[in-house]
Amino acid sequence: MTLEAIRYQSGRLEILDQLLLPDVTEYISIKNTQDGWKAIKLMQVRGAPAIAIVGCLSLAVELHDKEFSSPEDLRSFVEEQLDYLVSARPTAVNISDAAVKGKSLVARLVSDQKYTTEEIKLRVIKEFEDMLQYDIKVNQSIGHFGAEFILQKNDNQPVNVLTHCNTGSLATAGYGTALGVIRKLHEQSKLEHAYCTETRPYLQGARLTAYELVHEKMNASLICDNMVAALMAEKKIHAVIVGADRVVANGDTANKIGTYQLAVLAKYHQVPFYVACPQTTFDSNLKAGDDIQIEVRPPEELTCIKGIRVAAAGINCWNPAFDVTPAQLITGGIITEFGVFRPEELLQKFNEHSTEQFK
Amino acid sequence: MTLEAIRYQSGRLEILDQLLLPDVTEYISIKNTQDGWKAIKLMQVRGAPAIAIVGCLSLAVELHDKEFSSPEDLRSFVEEQLDYLVSARPTAVNISDAAVKGKSLVARLVSDQKYTTEEIKLRVIKEFEDMLQYDIKVNQSIGHFGAEFILQKNDNQPVNVLTHCNTGSLATAGYGTALGVIRKLHEQSKLEHAYCTETRPYLQGARLTAYELVHEKMNASLICDNMVAALMAEKKIHAVIVGADRVVANGDTANKIGTYQLAVLAKYHQVPFYVACPQTTFDSNLKAGDDIQIEVRPPEELTCIKGIRVAAAGINCWNPAFDVTPAQLITGGIITEFGVFRPEELLQKFNEHSTEQFK
Repeated sequence: MTLEAIRYQSGRLEILDQLLLPDVTEYISIKNTQDGWKAIKLMQVRGAPAIAIVGCLSLAVELHDKEFSSPEDLRSFVEEQLDYLVSARPTAVNISDAAVKGKSLVARLVSDQKYTTEEIKLRVIKEFEDMLQYDIKVNQSIGHFGAEFILQKNDNQPVNVLTHCNTGSLATAGYGTALGVIRKLHEQSKLEHAYCTETRPYLQGARLTAYELVHEKMNASLICDNMVAALMAEKKIHAVIVGADRVVANGDTANKIGTYQLAVLAKYHQVPFYVACPQTTFDSNLKAGDDIQIEVRPPEELTCIKGIRVAAAGINCWNPAFDVTPAQLITGGIITEFGVFRPEELLQKFNEHSTEQFK
Repeated sequence: MTLEAIRYQSGRLEILDQLLLPDVTEYISIKNTQDGWKAIKLMQVRGAPAIAIVGCLSLAVELHDKEFSSPEDLRSFVEEQLDYLVSARPTAVNISDAAVKGKSLVARLVSDQKYTTEEIKLRVIKEFEDMLQYDIKVNQSIGHFGAEFILQKNDNQPVNVLTHCNTGSLATAGYGTALGVIRKLHEQSKLEHAYCTETRPYLQGARLTAYELVHEKMNASLICDNMVAALMAEKKIHAVIVGADRVVANGDTANKIGTYQLAVLAKYHQVPFYVACPQTTFDSNLKAGDDIQIEVRPPEELTCIKGIRVAAAGINCWNPAFDVTPAQLITGGIITEFGVFRPEELLQKFNEHSTEQFK
């Protein structure tokens, strides 16, 4: 059974509190956008796709019981709440992509003047609900294209791969992006060994990815973030596969801190470096990586682990949550639900494939 | 006041338990080589120079109260105990260097047939005791030459430096090697900012280096091991300075896991990479890095922090304690007590300067 990070039924949303994993499996109830915003901010839910889905579903449950006096009243509420949700974390783009599409949809329905307030509300809720199934479908396509491409490059022989942070069932609606590719390799008995980095400071690799790898009984090992070069020098690694929080027009990619470093190390050791992400992670409004706002988080994330102080008292910290990998270091390609593309052809390819969401 | 990691007076040895730092400052008594071996193995003392000193002083205190029936009896005991101490950790060479010199000294004194058993014993004890003062003197020279060289390369302007693990007062008899260079820059008001990595899994950077940096009131920030490339891309770093556990004939250098990775990242970002170490870290018996035995430590060091489990249950770990940096990545030079040298000229330079120890 795959891990279920998001439980939803009409008017009711629960999410697995990822801060407590892997020790405690506890679901928390999200009743409105305030709850959603808080869960995203505190990282009880993380992963760019999952953040978007939980954010939108938190609005769906709030809309479910709420009455509106007019379509215009509904529209302004939806817009306000979506903007509020986007503010929880600035780097991941999927939620802001969903917000733009959601606002556009509600504006269109309102201006049509064909629908009642209730009809518009139900339609908006339905669109948010569909994100869950759509995301799983997209991830399975990513897994399929990624595994096929990597195996093709390796004479269809089993491969050793390295991943970073968590991009699995817990970061998405299910299956996963980068971890979806690894999952697909495993399903095809083509995964020799998966290595995952701890991913300090939040240890998403040690806590969440390791949890998923053990759960799926994959051959896997955890390493510290500083063991990557030694690993590449000592063992044959066939691919590094990571997720993304935002890919911009030229292919530059923001992802969990440490990703850029992996890309430099992969380049040096001639290991192909792949980014796996859905179209919703693509932000054609920004031209290059320099334009991406990088979230800097509190020093306590470095100095304390599980509430226990580990660093010397009084030390300053620098704690950027993400970094930007330049397109030219994404040497393997960008794995999407439409195929594997070179970073520089992504803009054109995504223009050819319009999303099925919020149509 | 500098931190005092090793407290010694005739017949009495106490060391600061570095596993408890920075929370608790507690000295443990080392009464014999069994205690010394255990403290080294458990990493209550760590750092290649400090391991050698504590090992030899543990033998000095044991010798202090012990009677021997003959010079030969003393010789065989000293040899046996030195071999035993070397076995505690295989990668750092300084203790094995001291063991070779100690054994050679006692063999020479015994074969001379000029000395009583007691005279030989006192002479051996004296040599071990001298290691403490000698190491501090050596470190101050390293600090002097390193700071001078780096400032020369940077028009005598204040510099930003990055270091890894702990190479300070806690890793040596006092002052430090790589951290000694940083300390000297600070003393000369030429340290703009020092960055130190956490150094997972043992967090020597977060616990020990951060502790020393705060203690000395240096401008400093702690970063995670996966933030190095992002740091180099965002801020001007003038030098990476690390210590060494063993430098072999061709200049290849074994040091704390993560060092090789720093060297690759420094090369990519054109940041000069320096190794700071005394002559006792040099092992001309090994030709190249491939010959160095790398200690692999238990998985629990990754999965638990301060006894609390952080990683998912059931995950395998790969936990090498050291890695090897090829000489060609040591682009700044090797900072020794005799000056700063290119890795390839080290063998010749060290042959020109014979050690003052165990003469």
